[in-house]
Amino acid sequence: MANPTLLILAGDGIGPEVMGQVKRVIDWFGTKRNLAFDVSEDLVGGAAYDAHGTPLHDDTMAKALAADAVLLGAVGGPKYDALDFSVKPERGLLRLRKEMDLFSNLRPAQCFDALADFSSLKKDVVAGLDIMIVRELTSGVYFGEPRGIFEEGNERVGINTQRYTEGEIDRVARSAFELARRRNKKVCSMEKANVMESGILWREVVQKVRDADYPDIELSHMYADNGAMQLVRAPKQFDVILTDNLFGDILSDCAAMLTGSLGMLPSASLGAPTDTGRPRALYEPVHGSAPDIAGQGKANPIACILSFAMALRYSFDRGDEAARLEAAIETVLADGARTADLMGEEGGTPISTTEMGDAILSAL
Amino acid sequence: MANPTLLILAGDGIGPEVMGQVKRVIDWFGTKRNLAFDVSEDLVGGAAYDAHGTPLHDDTMAKALAADAVLLGAVGGPKYDALDFSVKPERGLLRLRKEMDLFSNLRPAQCFDALADFSSLKKDVVAGLDIMIVRELTSGVYFGEPRGIFEEGNERVGINTQRYTEGEIDRVARSAFELARRRNKKVCSMEKANVMESGILWREVVQKVRDADYPDIELSHMYADNGAMQLVRAPKQFDVILTDNLFGDILSDCAAMLTGSLGMLPSASLGAPTDTGRPRALYEPVHGSAPDIAGQGKANPIACILSFAMALRYSFDRGDEAARLEAAIETVLADGARTADLMGEEGGTPISTTEMGDAILSAL
Ligand SMILES: CC(C)[C@H](C(=O)O)[C@@H](O)C(=O)O
Ligand SMILES: CC(C)[C@H](C(=O)O)[C@@H](O)C(=O)O
Repeated sequence: MANPTLLILAGDGIGPEVMGQVKRVIDWFGTKRNLAFDVSEDLVGGAAYDAHGTPLHDDTMAKALAADAVLLGAVGGPKYDALDFSVKPERGLLRLRKEMDLFSNLRPAQCFDALADFSSLKKDVVAGLDIMIVRELTSGVYFGEPRGIFEEGNERVGINTQRYTEGEIDRVARSAFELARRRNKKVCSMEKANVMESGILWREVVQKVRDADYPDIELSHMYADNGAMQLVRAPKQFDVILTDNLFGDILSDCAAMLTGSLGMLPSASLGAPTDTGRPRALYEPVHGSAPDIAGQGKANPIACILSFAMALRYSFDRGDEAARLEAAIETVLADGARTADLMGEEGGTPISTTEMGDAILSAL
Repeated sequence: MANPTLLILAGDGIGPEVMGQVKRVIDWFGTKRNLAFDVSEDLVGGAAYDAHGTPLHDDTMAKALAADAVLLGAVGGPKYDALDFSVKPERGLLRLRKEMDLFSNLRPAQCFDALADFSSLKKDVVAGLDIMIVRELTSGVYFGEPRGIFEEGNERVGINTQRYTEGEIDRVARSAFELARRRNKKVCSMEKANVMESGILWREVVQKVRDADYPDIELSHMYADNGAMQLVRAPKQFDVILTDNLFGDILSDCAAMLTGSLGMLPSASLGAPTDTGRPRALYEPVHGSAPDIAGQGKANPIACILSFAMALRYSFDRGDEAARLEAAIETVLADGARTADLMGEEGGTPISTTEMGDAILSAL
């Protein structure tokens, strides 16, 4: 049987550096665990714009659709700030999400024991935190039409459209309930049904899916503003949070920051199963391209490596190997290995991106 | 000269209880500080629905438009959850905001020294926190058309429209810059210009207003998801935050919760000046109607009393008297007076809503 295929899109800023360490980890699984992948690489974001004048070339799009999983680094940087909206680095990422139809974005907010002190929150509020945010990723205000800046009378008006069909809500709700089944069986769905009709439909469909097919899951509903408050007040009350594209963008970043170490957090974006039985899938760290430290060997590769662990679990059904990799990372952290972003007030000497890769490989 | 007029809309849940203490404070200013108001009262929210079948009667709307300032308690409660969207308690509040054209919503997130321990954040992260969030309140996705739930093919679709004109952005930006001038002269504007065209227009207009008329103000721009992260990570980096209606709803609640004591936070919603020279204005606590503790004398009246202090400052140009009231509240807190919501881990005996009112009056 042919090896499964991975497309690596390292992107901009620290993307290539952190992805360098992921490639070493992939190789390790090929040689040591008999889990080989056929890896190819291509450009996305500013790097693709520089080469082709577009943040995602059609050929790259085709490769992404053909791959068993895509690993993405990060996109964007000040160099591209002045570009037109339509060719900004982010458009490459948004196109991947849309054309691969990656409707379910999984964002774990997990607090690593060794790093609980990094949070701006009190230790007892976040120690042991383990939330999964399921964010709808292919619809809502990110993609709704009409959109744009229009003339109206003698002024301009900026318009975007929040838009959800029953089917779009239904499928992402199912993915949240499925996940909850493998966790603590609790889903909290967040919207603004008190203000937005799209939120009313959201709430109704989510409840219907639960009642019809997931009676074993405890479902609650919360307004998104209250959700933001509760995340700050007592985040451990949550197991799985289900929400739309825009609320999910904000709430998942809020939740991520509760852990205090953004350089640690991976994400998975999943679509429907293809002929192979595997979902279309893209994995990427939550952190951005961090142009201020790019090229200096300072970046923390863990989030990107944990994104590969998510690929092992969600694309290749190798939760066992994912757990092995995650355990290696916990060991390394417990042993005190710290990249610059993980330096606390105690100080100490940070290790480089490559040294962190070395440490993880030797722990494996 | 006639006394200025105040319309009190106590609303639902704990609204009437906390407003009861505000009325005592208003009386005190009338008798002791020669600052008398003509006060009238009416219904809003569920209370108005129970009486009239609508969450805001047209007569009440007319009174609100005629008053020099409106003081609102809180709206909503489980009793009204099953009502149709169009007559839910919240619609009363949203109608007031819209018809009074209260485009600038001021939400201070302030950490009281005596209460810094209540925050779920580490003390050094929040002690001394003093942010002002300026939220656009009469436009955006809250009011944009088209909106509703429509049939499309064989399924339903929920639609809302995010919509901002240049004029709407311009006026709220000015109010943020004016406020910043009286504070630390820093404004951070938040949107999702990387994804939404309405955010691009927002950013452009805010920058133009700053460059033309507020060169003394330091303006920065931040994506709203990063804004949520930064609020959690290091909130003291901010002075004034300017944002739209929906982002403002979420970010201001997130910021409010940083302080750990929601029962302390007031808000002001301001419109354009009327013939009197005063802005149209509505003042309300940030907390909700807390139906679970309503009628038990447990509610903290401070947020509602501080909302009246904001009225003194922003409607009646009596910053001196507002400061007097705020100082009395600080004194009371420093002396250890605590309603049930302010009980920490040390325990102690909470005082009642009325006792807190007593304490504040005697500190005055
Ligand atoms: C880069 C940007 C377009 C993106 C988003 O808004 O979805 C990012 O913030 C994210 O959350 O993945
Ligand atoms: C009650 C609700 C309609 C309101 C809003 O969403 O604006 C509330 O959350 C607020 O922030 O004042």
